[in-house]
Amino acid sequence: MTTGRFITLEGGEGSGKSTQGALLAEALRRRGHEVVLTREPGGTPGAEAIRALLVTGEPDRWPPWSDALLMTAARVDHVARVIRPALARGATVICDRFIDSTRAYQGAGRGLPDAALVRLHDDAVGLWPDCTLVLLLDEAEGLRRALARGGSEARFEAIGGDFHARVQGFFTALPTAEPARCRAIDAGGSIAQVAARITAALARPA
Amino acid sequence: MTTGRFITLEGGEGSGKSTQGALLAEALRRRGHEVVLTREPGGTPGAEAIRALLVTGEPDRWPPWSDALLMTAARVDHVARVIRPALARGATVICDRFIDSTRAYQGAGRGLPDAALVRLHDDAVGLWPDCTLVLLLDEAEGLRRALARGGSEARFEAIGGDFHARVQGFFTALPTAEPARCRAIDAGGSIAQVAARITAALARPA
Repeated sequence: MTTGRFITLEGGEGSGKSTQGALLAEALRRRGHEVVLTREPGGTPGAEAIRALLVTGEPDRWPPWSDALLMTAARVDHVARVIRPALARGATVICDRFIDSTRAYQGAGRGLPDAALVRLHDDAVGLWPDCTLVLLLDEAEGLRRALARGGSEARFEAIGGDFHARVQGFFTALPTAEPARCRAIDAGGSIAQVAARITAALARPA
Repeated sequence: MTTGRFITLEGGEGSGKSTQGALLAEALRRRGHEVVLTREPGGTPGAEAIRALLVTGEPDRWPPWSDALLMTAARVDHVARVIRPALARGATVICDRFIDSTRAYQGAGRGLPDAALVRLHDDAVGLWPDCTLVLLLDEAEGLRRALARGGSEARFEAIGGDFHARVQGFFTALPTAEPARCRAIDAGGSIAQVAARITAALARPA
């Protein structure tokens, strides 16, 4: 069975994932690919209902494991209803955040063991990306961009400084720890510069 | 640290768990115990919000793993905010449904592997009941009672016949499979008769 390529974009707040995801989708469509561009948390009506529970309220609304399980429940729905069917018909799927965001935010950030999160993903989701682009930005620059952007879904951005350092540390270490799947992308500079680095990284064999 | 006793009630629809939970709480309070009587899914504002996602909509609204993860996310919140604090101050906690309902409905009923559900519970919740009372009723009698009761939260009751047989099979086998924790309670006969059986089972050492 021919299946499409599953690409995820990961990185801290303000690293430019959404912008780059849209540009990449456009570039692949110009080359004749069917592309499904989606995001987490969300991507299906059920997952959006869960997202609404997650992004509102106080920073400590949920214990860390509840956060991780809600994220994963939404991911299961998203994978079953959107991602797997698209891959099965040969489309390229580009997803803004996936399992590595759970590992970064609930794992490194809030202290859940990475091994348990990976095991849960294997048991409940059972699908890993073919390629994960990790957009890396100097931490201060990332937070500055996120704050400048503002927006109402500020719950995760309202948690203090050490948290962001741990999240950033996870993303920084990921491409080295899992080199077959993950690529580090320097997210500094202009939008066009970052897009060119992504194109180059996707052309490079694993 | 002195901690209270954690008792769960399990069993199929219409087996009388809620009635018996209330009677048991009353009996223990008369003997001077502080008792916290609670239920799943639900038990905290966060868990009730998740419950609302779970009990409405079509029977196939969620893939089985999403159901299991939403249940577990609610359970984590319930345990952290209600059950653990009550046990820590020495109260007896009686909970109407807990992990074994997830194993019965999402595991045996919808095909998720029991070992993965148990592992998830160990990782994310990490608390097992001291005693689980499994109310067992002839399957036809249980369904008849449930249908007679009606009610709006009929999603789980709308799933067809084989499903209920597999759920019932899990509950029937549980007391034999996990005898240190679980007690089979014959749920047939009058309310007073069942209550007397529960009192006797709780007095009997493991």
